[in-house]
Amino acid sequence: MENFRFCNGTDVRFGKGMLNCLPELLKPYGNRVLMTYGGGSIKRTGLYSQIRMLLTDFEVFELSGIEPNPRIQSVYAGQALCADKKIDIILAVGGGSTIDCSKAIAAAACSEEDAWQLVLNPSKIKRALPIVTVLTLAATGSETNCGGVISNPATSEKLGFQNPSVRPKAAVLDPELTYTVSSKQTAAGAADIFSHVVEQYFSREPCYVTDAICEGVMRTVVRYAPLALREPRCYEARAQLMWASTLGLNMICSLGKRTAWSCHPIEHEVSAYYDVTHGVGLAILTPRWMRYALNEQTLDCFVRYAQNVWGIKDNNDRWATAREGIDRTTAFFGSLNIPATLSELGVGNEHFEQMAQHAIAYNDLKNAFVPMDEKTVWNVLNASL
Amino acid sequence: MENFRFCNGTDVRFGKGMLNCLPELLKPYGNRVLMTYGGGSIKRTGLYSQIRMLLTDFEVFELSGIEPNPRIQSVYAGQALCADKKIDIILAVGGGSTIDCSKAIAAAACSEEDAWQLVLNPSKIKRALPIVTVLTLAATGSETNCGGVISNPATSEKLGFQNPSVRPKAAVLDPELTYTVSSKQTAAGAADIFSHVVEQYFSREPCYVTDAICEGVMRTVVRYAPLALREPRCYEARAQLMWASTLGLNMICSLGKRTAWSCHPIEHEVSAYYDVTHGVGLAILTPRWMRYALNEQTLDCFVRYAQNVWGIKDNNDRWATAREGIDRTTAFFGSLNIPATLSELGVGNEHFEQMAQHAIAYNDLKNAFVPMDEKTVWNVLNASL
Repeated sequence: MENFRFCNGTDVRFGKGMLNCLPELLKPYGNRVLMTYGGGSIKRTGLYSQIRMLLTDFEVFELSGIEPNPRIQSVYAGQALCADKKIDIILAVGGGSTIDCSKAIAAAACSEEDAWQLVLNPSKIKRALPIVTVLTLAATGSETNCGGVISNPATSEKLGFQNPSVRPKAAVLDPELTYTVSSKQTAAGAADIFSHVVEQYFSREPCYVTDAICEGVMRTVVRYAPLALREPRCYEARAQLMWASTLGLNMICSLGKRTAWSCHPIEHEVSAYYDVTHGVGLAILTPRWMRYALNEQTLDCFVRYAQNVWGIKDNNDRWATAREGIDRTTAFFGSLNIPATLSELGVGNEHFEQMAQHAIAYNDLKNAFVPMDEKTVWNVLNASL
Repeated sequence: MENFRFCNGTDVRFGKGMLNCLPELLKPYGNRVLMTYGGGSIKRTGLYSQIRMLLTDFEVFELSGIEPNPRIQSVYAGQALCADKKIDIILAVGGGSTIDCSKAIAAAACSEEDAWQLVLNPSKIKRALPIVTVLTLAATGSETNCGGVISNPATSEKLGFQNPSVRPKAAVLDPELTYTVSSKQTAAGAADIFSHVVEQYFSREPCYVTDAICEGVMRTVVRYAPLALREPRCYEARAQLMWASTLGLNMICSLGKRTAWSCHPIEHEVSAYYDVTHGVGLAILTPRWMRYALNEQTLDCFVRYAQNVWGIKDNNDRWATAREGIDRTTAFFGSLNIPATLSELGVGNEHFEQMAQHAIAYNDLKNAFVPMDEKTVWNVLNASL
């Protein structure tokens, strides 16, 4: 078991009606709130008006239109607003894109550095405006962690950053707020959760208790994602997926393990070039990466995955068991109606070489579960076409 | 899934050599440290000198001799020291007893109320001195949670209290510090961890993802407690048990569930009257309580427990499966060389009526997984003789 530090003090308010906690959660940090959100679905669902009514005692300013795969331009816009309006606290209402963007804004607002430089070198982040999140999509886990991903279309870069000072102070997690999430986004969110756990589970350093938690979170996604698709207003399904999303990336699934992610770095390249939905890209790449990663050394881990996540019985052929686990993974994403190939998303192989170069340059893929170089990244991309 | 609030900001430093973080962890809170510990085993192991050497820049005062099942008298003694020495922060070095006692001291030091009144009515706790813990026994989970248990021999009361302000600011969890824990204490600690999870798992309100985590933590104890007994210096076994102890009672095992504990309230009565080791009492009572709790309504939950914790295959007889799960629980505690009956601990039935009365009066047993009254508490005690 590896040494670790774990400190996640986000004040999570989970369940029906928790939106009403917002004034209490914001008040300690000040009166001037920057409310950030995406394309306006929160106006259609009524969430926007609900929040504005709750915040009549605050001075609320807005940054809307934060895009999926949020761009550095939105960060600059938010940074300017924070300075101009003397913002005390950021209220991020949305999914991972809005929250990630808000984290970068919160850091940029407290720094003399250019915002993109902070993404490139997050150790330069010394402090950040406080953030409170209202989650509307179960997917990224950004609601309680200290990471984010920002895209820079000018350079076709999509990069993750992490710093403890951008961890949200509080998170409102009301599963009812996800009733209106489309089938496509629900499925992509489920794939994102599942993939986060896969990245942490398949590690050169297993850890029994943490791996058991990983398996439990993965089984939860397998059980409840189809139910949420069949019955979008099923509270239990939405609640299980929402808490799974937080557990999937609040570090509890990697404690005591050595982790170096594989599929996310590759997917970030795909969505940097093609603006595909992150979870969809992951669902396509993950089983292909699994086939690449299965070998003599990793067989045990894949057999464990097959048995403990998919309930595949031991049939004395460990290779067959391992492969069946991977097949079930593919079939599961298919059952959520997620496209099976990158081609279906309009992705061709024309940028694969640059994408592979970037993935290797910006990530620790040589220390991943199974080490990768440009050639093997290219192979996984090509197998996903 | 039930609504919940979750906020656990304890800064956990887990692993080999983490003791060296102590100065950094204490410094933000001040210079005058009250170091609390138990019967002096930390002097025999060298831990005491290690800590004193690390803290040469601090003014360190000491409260030693905190007893297992810590008593209110120790709380008064610590409270007086805090006032007299103008203590800034409490450094609790030990297992749950030392940490629980330190929490009560930390609260009493900041209150005008009598310390026992704070235990009886913890909502009166408004603030507390900061606490940092160095864990030397994997058992209670007190190292990162906000609860404690204090005994009052004058009234034969042993009562739990909870308040967010006594949650430790930081916890040093170095599994190597538990290498010297005796077989008896290792086994009792393992039983305590297991029992904490049992209390949260068997609930009228299941929660899939949380229950999967519970099962994982229980399997971890089942797998690693025997190994720690066979090889006391096995790092992996000590590490898995230590992190399981924290997970077992940092709330992660009860989120989304409605819980009302059963065995702990009864065991607290036993150890209030007889000063038996808490984990030993729990190991004896838990399987007896399980037999009481198994009925038509709870059968599903016991079958799930049997299958997912003990790996018992479905054999078409659900009652047999459920009973086999309970039998395996009994056998497991036996395999740790924990006494099988209260009689072996010198406990007779002479106080059972008062104990049952107390257990009902001070706890919410009528809302437990299977409701209990004085008669049924008496029955479980009697079945444990």
